[in-house]
Amino acid sequence: MTKHWVRFTHDGTQGFGMLEGDAIRVCAGSMFSGAQPTGQVVPLGAVRLLTPVVPTKVIALWNNFHALGEKLNLPVPAEPLYLLKAPNSFLEPGGIIAHPGCEGRVVFEGELAVVIGKTCKRVSESDALDHVLGYTCVNDVTAADILHRDASFAQWVRAKGFDTFCPFGPSIATGLDPATLVVRTLLDGVERQNYPISDMRFPVQRLVSLISQDMTLNPGDLILCGTSVGVGSMKPGSTVQVAIAGIGTLTNRFL
Amino acid sequence: MTKHWVRFTHDGTQGFGMLEGDAIRVCAGSMFSGAQPTGQVVPLGAVRLLTPVVPTKVIALWNNFHALGEKLNLPVPAEPLYLLKAPNSFLEPGGIIAHPGCEGRVVFEGELAVVIGKTCKRVSESDALDHVLGYTCVNDVTAADILHRDASFAQWVRAKGFDTFCPFGPSIATGLDPATLVVRTLLDGVERQNYPISDMRFPVQRLVSLISQDMTLNPGDLILCGTSVGVGSMKPGSTVQVAIAGIGTLTNRFL
Repeated sequence: MTKHWVRFTHDGTQGFGMLEGDAIRVCAGSMFSGAQPTGQVVPLGAVRLLTPVVPTKVIALWNNFHALGEKLNLPVPAEPLYLLKAPNSFLEPGGIIAHPGCEGRVVFEGELAVVIGKTCKRVSESDALDHVLGYTCVNDVTAADILHRDASFAQWVRAKGFDTFCPFGPSIATGLDPATLVVRTLLDGVERQNYPISDMRFPVQRLVSLISQDMTLNPGDLILCGTSVGVGSMKPGSTVQVAIAGIGTLTNRFL
Repeated sequence: MTKHWVRFTHDGTQGFGMLEGDAIRVCAGSMFSGAQPTGQVVPLGAVRLLTPVVPTKVIALWNNFHALGEKLNLPVPAEPLYLLKAPNSFLEPGGIIAHPGCEGRVVFEGELAVVIGKTCKRVSESDALDHVLGYTCVNDVTAADILHRDASFAQWVRAKGFDTFCPFGPSIATGLDPATLVVRTLLDGVERQNYPISDMRFPVQRLVSLISQDMTLNPGDLILCGTSVGVGSMKPGSTVQVAIAGIGTLTNRFL
């Protein structure tokens, strides 16, 4: 059975629970193990949603979709290629993506994020999905013109690490088969991306297994699966929605 | 007056305080503001030191010393070039640097780290040092052969992000002029690096100011200033010490 975990503030206190339609069934404990409904139910409209988890790290894949790699003539990677998004970039659903203050294009990249559920280190591919809590939507915002302006050092971390450049949510959906999911990104209501997760070079279980060979993954950590074709620029005032059926829609405005 | 802040566990509880010779004057509150001595003093030998702070992020500079840049014929960067070290790489003084499990060289890089003391965003160069708590020693460990094995994407984050690849400490020293400091790195007791911080392309106040244009810096965040000449490989069994007079000596073994 699919659950949709959310975190929120309500009447000045933080909480978490299961989203059920327009209501949240509040829970105690931890969404990673042994969560118990308290009996309290609050309307979604009465809370402010927070990021659905607080990651210790967010790992972001590059060149992980066949369609985008072929369009850009990128070489086929022998292993997952990734960077880290800075914690100051984390932003809640509905939060404002702030202009980075530098010149150049600021682009949206709608993506699926894997949410780690259990600590794992050197987990096998066959055990990897047992360490996943669920999935959420991400906008992997990038100040694109910074990336390659120094010829000696690609500035991935910086270009993707500005404050508010990693909105994610609205919920963590459990019990899904990631290979069936489709990512749609809408800019001011117009669809700009629509691509299947089944097109990934490294599917979720391989990503979790391979990255866990390098780094211990902790509950709440995110792996952003990378984006595919249709990336584009945001203008001040733009609204970007990343919608994945089975998870929900992440909506943020850029100012 | 210089203070040397440390964090530790003692009799199963965590604490922090000021290192004074071979004793720790235990404090309550926060080392970032309003710390108060509790009256308790514990011998250094009775505690296990922890990382002196718990950063939300560790920013690591590349190509920030004239001497190393000239030796390697690197172009002069127009702006600070940096990556992030993953939180799973943080390691306490005395902790064991674990072999990454992949083939190839594992290198030490002795460095100075700036420890942020107050939240800052877009701070001016003249105000930057008011937002610094102090300084500590770091070994910016790197699985060097991973860095450039994919020609399309330099794997900085991965090569420097393995578990235990960011030992730092032993203390945060306050009240120092960073431009007067000298970094020495010893491999099995033999000096391999000895370079002055005054050789930095971007001095501390410029680094803090420029990076804070991009990212909000939080108390406890580290900026690793980059390394200079003398970097080399560790072998299983090697002991690496990063010694900065006025701060202390960080000692870790590689296994």
